[in-house]
Amino acid sequence: MSLMVVGTVALDDLKTPAGEMKNLLGGSASHLSMSASLFTKVHLAGIIGEDFPQEHLQLFKKKKINIDSVVRVSGKTFHWCGEYKKEDLNSAITLKTELGVITQYVPRVTPAQKNIPNVFLANIDPETQWKFLKCMNKPKFVGMDTMNLWINTMRESVLRLMKEVDLLVLNDGEVRLLTGETNIIKSAKRLRKMGPKIIVIKKGEHGVFCYSDKFLFGFPAFPVSDVIDPTGAGDTFAGGLMGYLAKKGKINEKNLRQALIYATICSSFNVEGFAAEKTAPLTLANIYKRKKIFLKFMKGPS
Amino acid sequence: MSLMVVGTVALDDLKTPAGEMKNLLGGSASHLSMSASLFTKVHLAGIIGEDFPQEHLQLFKKKKINIDSVVRVSGKTFHWCGEYKKEDLNSAITLKTELGVITQYVPRVTPAQKNIPNVFLANIDPETQWKFLKCMNKPKFVGMDTMNLWINTMRESVLRLMKEVDLLVLNDGEVRLLTGETNIIKSAKRLRKMGPKIIVIKKGEHGVFCYSDKFLFGFPAFPVSDVIDPTGAGDTFAGGLMGYLAKKGKINEKNLRQALIYATICSSFNVEGFAAEKTAPLTLANIYKRKKIFLKFMKGPS
Repeated sequence: MSLMVVGTVALDDLKTPAGEMKNLLGGSASHLSMSASLFTKVHLAGIIGEDFPQEHLQLFKKKKINIDSVVRVSGKTFHWCGEYKKEDLNSAITLKTELGVITQYVPRVTPAQKNIPNVFLANIDPETQWKFLKCMNKPKFVGMDTMNLWINTMRESVLRLMKEVDLLVLNDGEVRLLTGETNIIKSAKRLRKMGPKIIVIKKGEHGVFCYSDKFLFGFPAFPVSDVIDPTGAGDTFAGGLMGYLAKKGKINEKNLRQALIYATICSSFNVEGFAAEKTAPLTLANIYKRKKIFLKFMKGPS
Repeated sequence: MSLMVVGTVALDDLKTPAGEMKNLLGGSASHLSMSASLFTKVHLAGIIGEDFPQEHLQLFKKKKINIDSVVRVSGKTFHWCGEYKKEDLNSAITLKTELGVITQYVPRVTPAQKNIPNVFLANIDPETQWKFLKCMNKPKFVGMDTMNLWINTMRESVLRLMKEVDLLVLNDGEVRLLTGETNIIKSAKRLRKMGPKIIVIKKGEHGVFCYSDKFLFGFPAFPVSDVIDPTGAGDTFAGGLMGYLAKKGKINEKNLRQALIYATICSSFNVEGFAAEKTAPLTLANIYKRKKIFLKFMKGPS
């Protein structure tokens, strides 16, 4: 089944110990769509400005991502400048954020897109996520992400949205900010009470933890020796997760375990290059090959 | 096969968000011996003062731990006062360290103990670890741990010792201090070049990573919802690891994977109570039961 994704479509300037790059394809929805498109048909929604390069739109098309709801308006594309220091590649330092056209974004989908059964609300302000969700016609399965900025500044909106979604994907820092709890089981239980039936906590290089009323499991991360740029790793992770779940069409423990393995593998490629450098050319064959290595890495004693 | 353990045998005053306790059984070798004794015959070596309670010695005996090389001298037992804050239960804050009789310790073993094939040099200063190793008659398999204090103040001694051991067990902070590297694969490779054939990196609540020339694997931690006191968790972990390896008598990937599962389970019990409160009464039946739950928690997609 198809997946509808809304979030930011952006241009990024990135500075990491591996170098400095400007005007790269960025944004939560961009990264997410690309990894999800490996598994299922993806529809992308968002807003871009006049400066958004045609080649990035070509890349979406090449990935068979439907961009009918990517609106182009006059003005500048959302632009993020970030840095990662060698001592902590897990934490992005925001150097500059230029909102550009994103402030004008009025969520909309085409009539045909209204009935897409799977929706992922990638990181963008929670009011936009909410409005977007209301454009859809009772989707079967809804996932969401958010970030520290919205938890701090629009907490009530985040909480309202959480009541409407099935799956919540957050990193451990966001979980802590939202729940005030450091223990992973306790925080997952608190998040469950806030609405979402499935809680996925991303721990970066330390792997992932998944909680629901019926099951609980966790995996390590795929160990990457040369981390070039972690930008979009979390979105790429969520894309692998949602893409695979949408493909399967059924949400159960078995599919979630499988989906989180794919999510892990997708994000491991993401960090090995700047922006979408490594995920853009990614094929399922690359994914399957690394998955085999990873399952061996993480397998219990025989 | 038997296991010879040297390290600190101590009294601990502990302050955690769960409460405050004084004069508890502590020390690297105490915690380590107790979990190792679940799997194999353990011989403990160390020094204690006049104040060391008889009941702790009784506990060792009850666990069938040989204490022929636990020397009691006049003076005070090594005493550590530490605190853990709610925000970071992984990091101990040292409030006070009273070395007591430990400065007088002259490593020695009984003639019968000289030929014990497995040795673990638990955390104590590296010169003592070295001298202790020289008391032994060419052991088949030697493991070691150390801590930030020795890496900072006796680095050359730590490096010298590393050349003589087969297995190194460190936490991620110690690894970083020793190698100057933040990437786990790169740091494991650097440690390998420093001597030990098997590198085990403990990541606390984030699990464990194991590296050798022939294999590489990682597991998450067993999720514990109520962490009472993490003191000795790392030693308890190393005890489960070394105890199981000593029992099997053969070091290969299969046994190491199994041993690290047992290590994980042992340490998960340790953190659920103050000091050795939960590990002292622990039986293999408890271990097997939790192991079953853990293998389900961490298993890949079927």
